[in-house]
Amino acid sequence: MKSRALTVSAAQLGPIPRSATKAETVARLIKLLESAASEGAQLVVFPEAALTPFFPHWFVRDRSELLTFYETRLPGPETQGLFDAASELQVAFVLGYAERTAANRFFNTAVLVDELGEVIHKYRKIHLPGFELKQEGAPFQNLEKRYFEVGDLGFGVRRWGNAEIGLAICNDRRWPETYRVMALRGAEVVCLGYNTPALTPHLPESDRLVDFQNHLSMQAGAYQNAMWVIGTAKAGTEEGVCQIGGSAIIAPSGEIVATARTMGDELVTAEIDLDMVTRYRRDVFNFSQHRRPEHYSIITDPVSL
Amino acid sequence: MKSRALTVSAAQLGPIPRSATKAETVARLIKLLESAASEGAQLVVFPEAALTPFFPHWFVRDRSELLTFYETRLPGPETQGLFDAASELQVAFVLGYAERTAANRFFNTAVLVDELGEVIHKYRKIHLPGFELKQEGAPFQNLEKRYFEVGDLGFGVRRWGNAEIGLAICNDRRWPETYRVMALRGAEVVCLGYNTPALTPHLPESDRLVDFQNHLSMQAGAYQNAMWVIGTAKAGTEEGVCQIGGSAIIAPSGEIVATARTMGDELVTAEIDLDMVTRYRRDVFNFSQHRRPEHYSIITDPVSL
Repeated sequence: MKSRALTVSAAQLGPIPRSATKAETVARLIKLLESAASEGAQLVVFPEAALTPFFPHWFVRDRSELLTFYETRLPGPETQGLFDAASELQVAFVLGYAERTAANRFFNTAVLVDELGEVIHKYRKIHLPGFELKQEGAPFQNLEKRYFEVGDLGFGVRRWGNAEIGLAICNDRRWPETYRVMALRGAEVVCLGYNTPALTPHLPESDRLVDFQNHLSMQAGAYQNAMWVIGTAKAGTEEGVCQIGGSAIIAPSGEIVATARTMGDELVTAEIDLDMVTRYRRDVFNFSQHRRPEHYSIITDPVSL
Repeated sequence: MKSRALTVSAAQLGPIPRSATKAETVARLIKLLESAASEGAQLVVFPEAALTPFFPHWFVRDRSELLTFYETRLPGPETQGLFDAASELQVAFVLGYAERTAANRFFNTAVLVDELGEVIHKYRKIHLPGFELKQEGAPFQNLEKRYFEVGDLGFGVRRWGNAEIGLAICNDRRWPETYRVMALRGAEVVCLGYNTPALTPHLPESDRLVDFQNHLSMQAGAYQNAMWVIGTAKAGTEEGVCQIGGSAIIAPSGEIVATARTMGDELVTAEIDLDMVTRYRRDVFNFSQHRRPEHYSIITDPVSL
């Protein structure tokens, strides 16, 4: 038995139809949670926006329709069952969802819920991709900048059990600052979900590389920061938008130790060794010995538009 | 013909024996430069410390012996031939070497020399790995922190022709800040050389991954910053220390477009399209649209030891 071993699952989802009720979707999540528990998982990572289809792919004209995609509280009546299952099964989970605050602010959010069913950490997506305005003529939209504010909670790190956990969401994984900030705060495991179209209409030359670039970003984040990364996709063709799969558990060596084989609901489970983080941070990426922040200042200069 | 096409070569070197004279080594460099020119190369990237064996692998007790590994000026009598060849062939090059200044300061340095044979840019290695003190019992040393100061010139970027060029050296390529700082300063091509042992005595579990981690770091740097990366190895077993090869030319997509097949002197040549940088920066990694420096501040906080 490793001294700091942890069994984790990426709980990949296939498409969520627009016609699905939240109760139906939550039932899928609970089924995955139960399977994960039966495999010994202690932590299960669901995708970004795991309760609904990825609605930023559409221009939704009707505000009352748009509001149905957001949660005003968590757990709420439709999600309580998932929280109950977690505490019954004694499994922690990470859940991505669209958040509407009491002050009518909107975020692309993820929470870490412990094995008692308590929300112990929240993250609001910082690197929002896409556009604020409808893109005329595009085969599908990416209106995250329209439907969400930039996250206001920073890249926090939360101790859970004997692990330091960080959260990120989708496009965050392509920006090296995401991992670096959390690593400097001590994160050992970064959990992230994504909804990533297989096609990039504004840069079709990258279409054949989407899976590769997904893994490249997460593998580099894991290796260069000596962290475990658990990346979970919403995969498959959802309301006409084809999304990549490739959910993966990635070691501090940069290696993918387990990955999804399908484009549907699928568990990817692995036992991870948190002491590997310690070894790589001591022997390869010793931040205090080798980093030279005096030469990095432009990284935190304000953006000039 | 692409609008901003450039033909570049990574000029990998096999081992340099301790017994080799500098004249012999420079003759090898000139031969590679001539071959590159005959293939149409406009820019040739030589490895780190390309004029000598990688002496930080040894504890050199005798100071006068140690000083023979450093250049006091460039070009000097032993290197003039390389500069002459460059201007004759109209080829620019990047050369790594150990630098001793007039004030007796020591740096692990690289220069960009233009096709007129003029030094137009200098970089001094910032991320020095290894140790200041001899490691007793180690199969080989890594005494870069003993033999060099941390570079004092920052990560500069220099316009050459119609390209913005940045330089880095060896261990720099594993730190995402290296690429990011230069990308924010407009670099389109990062040229770097390396001497990388195939074995990591203090973390043997990573030995089987050394080639993978080398490429992972450079591919992520290229992709996440939408830059071309030219990485050149000193490969093969040099005075008993086995070093990796894998010299590579890497696109802003993260793809390796050309790589070395041998562990000896070998040219890796490719035509690169600088406009690919422009496309990826506009359509995927639009820094001014998506970066959030207000959440990155810990990256530039002083290191706490």
